[in-house]
This record gives sequence, C-alpha cells and structure tokens, in this order.
Amino acid sequence: MESVPLLREQERSSNGKIAPFVAMLALAACMCLGVFETSTSTQKLPATSEIETFTGDLRQRCSVHYIEQTLDHFTASHGTYQERYFVCSEHWVQNGPIFFYTGNEGDVEMYLTNTGLMWENAKEFNAMLVFAEHRYFGKSIPFNGTFSKESMRFLSVEQALGDYAILVEHIKKQFNTKDSAVIAFGGSYGGMLAAWFRQKYPYIVDGSIAASAPVLAFDGETPPIDNEAFSRIVTFGATPAAGSAANCVPNVRKAQVVIRAASNSSDGWQQLKSSLRLCYAPTNTEEALSLLDLFTGVYGDLAMGNYPYPSSYIADNLPGYPYRAACEHLAPDFADDASLLQAFRDSAGVLYNATGKVPCYDWNSTTPVEQINFWEYLWCSEMYMPFDQNGVDDFLPVAIHNETSDAESCFKNWGVELRPLWANTVFGGVQGLQYSSNIVFSNGNYDPWSGYGVLHDLSDTLIAVEIDGGAHHLDLMFSNPLDPPSVTKARKIEMKHVRRWIQEKKKHV
Amino acid sequence: MESVPLLREQERSSNGKIAPFVAMLALAACMCLGVFETSTSTQKLPATSEIETFTGDLRQRCSVHYIEQTLDHFTASHGTYQERYFVCSEHWVQNGPIFFYTGNEGDVEMYLTNTGLMWENAKEFNAMLVFAEHRYFGKSIPFNGTFSKESMRFLSVEQALGDYAILVEHIKKQFNTKDSAVIAFGGSYGGMLAAWFRQKYPYIVDGSIAASAPVLAFDGETPPIDNEAFSRIVTFGATPAAGSAANCVPNVRKAQVVIRAASNSSDGWQQLKSSLRLCYAPTNTEEALSLLDLFTGVYGDLAMGNYPYPSSYIADNLPGYPYRAACEHLAPDFADDASLLQAFRDSAGVLYNATGKVPCYDWNSTTPVEQINFWEYLWCSEMYMPFDQNGVDDFLPVAIHNETSDAESCFKNWGVELRPLWANTVFGGVQGLQYSSNIVFSNGNYDPWSGYGVLHDLSDTLIAVEIDGGAHHLDLMFSNPLDPPSVTKARKIEMKHVRRWIQEKKKHV
Repeated sequence: MESVPLLREQERSSNGKIAPFVAMLALAACMCLGVFETSTSTQKLPATSEIETFTGDLRQRCSVHYIEQTLDHFTASHGTYQERYFVCSEHWVQNGPIFFYTGNEGDVEMYLTNTGLMWENAKEFNAMLVFAEHRYFGKSIPFNGTFSKESMRFLSVEQALGDYAILVEHIKKQFNTKDSAVIAFGGSYGGMLAAWFRQKYPYIVDGSIAASAPVLAFDGETPPIDNEAFSRIVTFGATPAAGSAANCVPNVRKAQVVIRAASNSSDGWQQLKSSLRLCYAPTNTEEALSLLDLFTGVYGDLAMGNYPYPSSYIADNLPGYPYRAACEHLAPDFADDASLLQAFRDSAGVLYNATGKVPCYDWNSTTPVEQINFWEYLWCSEMYMPFDQNGVDDFLPVAIHNETSDAESCFKNWGVELRPLWANTVFGGVQGLQYSSNIVFSNGNYDPWSGYGVLHDLSDTLIAVEIDGGAHHLDLMFSNPLDPPSVTKARKIEMKHVRRWIQEKKKHV
Repeated sequence: MESVPLLREQERSSNGKIAPFVAMLALAACMCLGVFETSTSTQKLPATSEIETFTGDLRQRCSVHYIEQTLDHFTASHGTYQERYFVCSEHWVQNGPIFFYTGNEGDVEMYLTNTGLMWENAKEFNAMLVFAEHRYFGKSIPFNGTFSKESMRFLSVEQALGDYAILVEHIKKQFNTKDSAVIAFGGSYGGMLAAWFRQKYPYIVDGSIAASAPVLAFDGETPPIDNEAFSRIVTFGATPAAGSAANCVPNVRKAQVVIRAASNSSDGWQQLKSSLRLCYAPTNTEEALSLLDLFTGVYGDLAMGNYPYPSSYIADNLPGYPYRAACEHLAPDFADDASLLQAFRDSAGVLYNATGKVPCYDWNSTTPVEQINFWEYLWCSEMYMPFDQNGVDDFLPVAIHNETSDAESCFKNWGVELRPLWANTVFGGVQGLQYSSNIVFSNGNYDPWSGYGVLHDLSDTLIAVEIDGGAHHLDLMFSNPLDPPSVTKARKIEMKHVRRWIQEKKKHV
C-alpha cells in the first residue's frame, strides 16, 4: 500500500531538500513500498446482506466514474481533463447526506480504502460516500498523463476546490438530490482541502471534518507561525512522555555526533558503511553528512504513523506504535560508537527495513520520474511551509529554511515562483477561518502536523478536537480494539457535529 | 468622459450581438464619446485648506502607483503585470479606515472622478481613498498592452479579486496600518466585485457597498433568474410611472412596425435613410432590420443614465432625466410614418446626438480594436447573463438568447468556451451570499440591472436598499440638489452601516 507522500516529502522539503525528479536522496527501502493495485475497480453492486466488517476490498462496494473537468476554472481556456471519483451508495437513501472525501495528493483509492470514519457511519446516516480524486494524482492526470513542467501549471489548491464544487453539483443533479447535506471529510492536505472547501464554498458544503490539517502553516499568519513546531513534535515522539525509551533522544543526538566525526575521513566513511549497513560507502564529507538527514528523517514518518496497531498507511508494515519500536533499539547505553550506530540503523530500519529483507541501504538512489509525487509542486507554487530544525529544541540536524534557496530550487525543478504569502492571502489563515462555520479540526499530539493545526475552538461551530496519543489523522482510520479512548471520543464528537449539520440543512430546505 | 462600457456592451450582448473586434454595429455618434484625459495624473499633495467642493480635477488630490501583480494567482506561472491604483489620503488619519474602490471594466480614473460617496465621506471618516484598477483596463494591461486572444486569458473575476486582496495587504503594510477597517465600494460590475470581495475575502474586507450589482444574473440560481427583467425595466422607464410621456411606449412599438414594413424594399430603405437621417441607406432587409436594435438600444442606456441632473457618466452630455427627454419626442400622436420615424430618430438622438452636431448616423461603422471593451471577454468566459426581450412585456424587438449561438460567437471572437454555470458555482448566487455578512446592496428602480440585484435583506447585515427613482448606482455619485430624497436616504443608510463595520473592526482589534 502506498505511503502518504505529502507528509514524507513535505517533511524533507522542510529541510530544504527539494530535488524532486532530479536526484531525490532516498534509501532504497523507501522506494520498495508496494504500489496499490488499481486495476480491479469494478461497478459491482454489494450484496445487501453484507455485514459491516470492512475487511474485503472496499473498492468493490463502489462504482468508479469520471467527470470531464475544466482544466482552468479561473482563466478561460479550452482544456479539460477526466477526474476520477468513486461513489459508494449501498446505504444511501434518497435525500440522504453525501459524505465527500476531498482527495489529496495520492491515488484516491488509498483514501477510499482507509477512511474508516466515512465507511463506519454510512449506514447509520444513510449516507452516500463519494471519494474524489485530486487533479494530477492517481488516474486524474491531465494531458493524457504526459509530464512536463509546463503541463503542471493547472495543479493548484484553488483549481482542485473548483473541481470539487463542480463535482458535488454534478452528483446532486445526477442523483436528483439537490437538498442533500454534503459533508466534506479529509485528512492532512485533504483536511486542509475539506476546511477550505467549506470556507470558500459554504453553499455547497454543509460542514467539514478536517483531520490533521496544517491550515496554519503559512507565512503571513498573525501571530507568526512557529517554524520549529514540526521538528519539536517529532522529537516529542522519541521521549518517555510519548511512550518511547528514555535514552532515545540522547542516543539519536550521540549518533549524529559520531556520524559527523566520521564524515571527515575515508576510514570514517568505511566505518559508516559497515555500521549503518550501507550498500556502498560515502566518498566525500558531503555525502557522509547527507546520511544525517536520511537516518533522522524516519522520525517524522514514525511520528505521523505512530498508530497503536500495525499499519501500512504512512509506510508499509509498520508495527503498533512504530516510534516506540524504533526508539527501543536506542534504549540501551552503548559501550562503543559502532554499537550505537548499529542501533541507530536498526531504529531507522523500523521504517526503511520494515520487512527485514533489505540487505543494505542504497542511500544514493534517485526517485524515478513516474514515482515523483507532485506535492512538491504544490509546495513550491503555493503551499510553501517554512519549517526549521534548530537542533536544540529538537534532536534533528540543524536545518533552517532559506527562502531564497528554496525559491531557486523550486524554479529550477518546477519552473515556478515561490509565493510564500499567497496561501495566507487566499485563505486567510486563522483570521479567514473565523468567518467560516461548521468545521471540526482534529489533531493528535503525536502528529507533528498538529503544530500547524487549529487546536482551540474558534467559535461554537469551529471546533478543535484533541486526540491524546493520536498520530496523523488517526480518527479517520477504521476503529480498532487498540484505539486509545481519546480517538473513540473524538469520532463521537465529530459525528455529533455531522448530525447537527445535517439537521440544520434539513431545517433550511 | 467615457461611458460605462459594461452596461452598454452588455445590454447588446443580451441580444446575442457579440461581435467585439470584428464588426460591432454601432452608430457613429456612439463612437464619438470623449476619451478621458489620463495623462495628467500627478503626485501633487492637496492644499490643506482646500474646501470640500469636489469641483476640480480629483486626480490631482491623489497619488498614482503601480504594484507588480502575479498574472495568474491560481496556477503557477512566471508572468506579472503592473496594476495601477490611486491613493487619496488627504483626510486619512493613521489607523483610519480604507475606502477601497474595486475597479470595474474601465479606466479607474472614471471611478475616481465619479464616486462621490467615497469623496464626500472621506473627511468625516478620516478615510484613505484607494481606487484600484481592474486588470486589462485603463493602464493596467498585461503584456505591454499587446492584444491577442491568447493574451486575454488572465482576465477573470477571480484573478481581479486576487489582485485586490494582495493590493489591500500591500497598502496596509506600506502605511503600517494593519488594523485599519477596509470598506469596499463598487458600482455595477464593480459592485459585484465589492460584494464578492467581501464574500470570498472577509478577513481582508470588513464590509462592502455594492451598488447596482447584478449578482443574481446567472444560470443556476434558485429560483431561476427572470431572463426578461432587464428589458421589462428598460420599458418601465418609458412609461408615465417613470415620468415619461404616455405615448412613448406605443410610439416606439409603432416605429418598429414602420421600420419592419420599410425593410423589404429599396424604396423603404431610402425612406429609412431620410427619416432616420442615416449617412447611407440600408442595402438589404437584414441591414434595415439591424436598425431596430440600434435605435431601440438607446433605451437601455437611457434607463441606466436616467439621473435627475445633466450628466456624462453613462454617455456624454445627457440632460437631466434623459429617458424622459427621449420620450418627450415621442409624446405626440403622429399623423404619418415619416413624422413618427423622425421623432423616433430624435428620441435616440438624446443619446446618439447629444451634442446636436451629428449630421447623420454612420450606422454601419465598426469599432476599432483599441476601443473594444473587454467586458465582452468576461461575459463570454464566466459572466454569461442570458437575457431576453420578448416584445410583449417589453417594447423592444424580440430577441431570445441562444446559448448555442452565444457559445459559438464567444469561441469565434475570443477563443473561449462559454461556461454558463460557473459564476453560480464559484459565487453561489443568493445561497452563497447568505453565508456572508456586512454588505449593502443598493438598487434604483429606474435601473434595468436592478432586475438581477439583491432587493430584500438577506440577513441583519446583508442589507437591500431601494432607491425610488434611482438610475444606475445613483447613490455612488456626488450629491446634487436635484437628488430625489430616496438617494439621500440611501446614502445615509449606507454610511450608517459603514460606520458600524468600522466600529466592529475596532472592537476586534
């Protein structure tokens, strides 16, 4: 199953490493994630006697459709593209609500398959589920899938929201259900889209569940954003307060000192090859230092994917509480540097060698173009989030964002200008949200993105839900016996608001 | 002084006559409107002892500026253009409000010069006046003013609103006045922009005066729009209820019967040449019939420009209540067809021969490219308003809109696809407005655009103000002793709300 590229790419972007289709540094194991099989979508109707277990292939319970969308909603042009969406209507009753997933930066089948909150509530609410694919992802790629810098220019948040507005109207017309309440659901960037969809198109969307949505991550925010929140929360995940071994943070720091020391000599490079089990040794200091980012980079992913049960959403084959598992390798006091580095390697292996079958780390591999995730394009063109690692409040290598060099990279890689203030202008950050209504923002304190989420109620209908011990949009996932009580409660609160929004809608019809 | 091209072009567009830079049929007199002298803008500061008479060149009391704007806010690209705006800050006190004119489809100097409501209230409110020019108009034309169909593609409502959002933020920063209330003012299409600016960017605009704004003129509205409202209100202007001669409507109808009868023979064409004082006779039936639209077309302009005092806003040299003046020519019972046609000609002459110096009507002249108004592009690309004349409820030639042929014309002339539902999707019509706040919509019952305006309060803060006997955004004009009491009252209501919005803003700072 595919990982969520936004988050992992994004985390790296925050370190200034935007090298999308040129030479994205990445460990080989990271590239071995299974690709979701997308060729089996059918239009088969579900058996009516089906028990709500959600164990089968959920795509089989939906029909797949394409809608011809205008490529550019905001400037006149001729182009269109085919946007894919899934409709899962087995429990839908005429005039019942529409639960609409605002697809984010990935194949929409991933969201269909994982968004348990929608599935588990469909029956009670007599809801139709719609999963909309974001333009330029999955099978919704313009220009017949051909890629060039120029062909990328219709990829934008506003265009995607325009697509969703048109799609909702289309579905309502097609199902002859113009008074149905529409509830948007989304997680991560999809959560941002769900919130902004309600904010900009409240007459189309009656309410939104915006899970783990870093809507306040942009320059121009008042008060200014905390650039270090992400890396600080990543670090929190490695502490006893988050259930990790007490030695984890100091040992990660020590491991970096050792790698830095080894980065200056060819002996050191060989030592790194051996201790870190690299497929080949670094050949210069810069290469050796790049290992710092690669090996510490896992902690961001582990923080996001720190679900209480084994999961393959953020990355394949993660164990329950994978961050704790990673830190367990770093629990001892190590007698020598080699042991420390080996443990550091094994810690990263929770993500990079989840199958236990990776013989060595091909650390200098590049990402093939077809595997590039276009989130970086969005980040460059309008979703620029200037994050820092200061190495003091966090346990990561120092990496302070540099707008100038980020702008240069973005222009070089994607041919676009960085517009650091635009996101705040067009959506207004917290000030903008305060004019909206009917949005639940949920955030888990294990999730580094919560540093840029809405953590306090903004009004009676702009609700912040905190999920103690929750990782990246845990609340959107299927219920699990290992769920902490906080997420069960969060889901109840969310659906209580959904119920209210639906009732409000009925009153106004 | 320039006329307001939106309205006049638009009215004609509603008859299906979109032939912008190919062969726009127009009487010669219509092309003789003086061009506003724009070369004298200076940055001179006003004398502090100046009396608020507003008789001089108001541009002299402002400074002119340009801001570099991104050409495309919603898809990444490299282009920028220079957007012009005027700042008139003689009465501004630090942290005082900003009155922001959302420029529409014309040279912004026209709005600067005519928007008396802003000027007359600047002192009392300690307000800074800002007049922002709409992209592609006046001196804010991208691509160094070169024109091609392709170069037009960044002309859109949403792009213009994006410009204004950025401009407000820029001005606040420049004047170090981040907590200033911002009040948008606009008339006609500018009124639509003012309303939509508040609707989509409420965190940037604290309230809007949307005068004569036909925000409900689009397909997709619930209930559907009344396609004939415009022509019915035009016709109302020719009735005694609007102060016009009782015979006006029947005589306009009769004149059309006579022209139709004359359209079939060369004798008739000569008769038309002589009675209507044409520079040359029609040479076929189609040409003769085209005179029906040309001569009846004036009534739309006269309805809009039906101000109680002489004015040159909608067209040059209009007398007070020009519609009544036009109808006065048609007050008698005419003994013969020639007399009727001559009177019909003189009626139209109130607009077409306002100076009394037009020797004959060059009815087949075309509009030079440089005089084309780009409103038609907007109309084709996203502001399509499907208006009809049924000839029964109105006194105009029958003209029922035809979406298919309009789409063909738009594609032929501008290379764009008609998107009749998009305006309603992106702004939501009356449903969309109901989620907004702090907008005053004003409409005069003499103004045919009021057929598509907000005529009833939508909430406690979405206010409809009716101006009995008011023509097109009369309330935005300078006060005049001949003003009907309705407009004086309307302005008071408007500024009462402006005061409230400013106070609200202060409370929230």
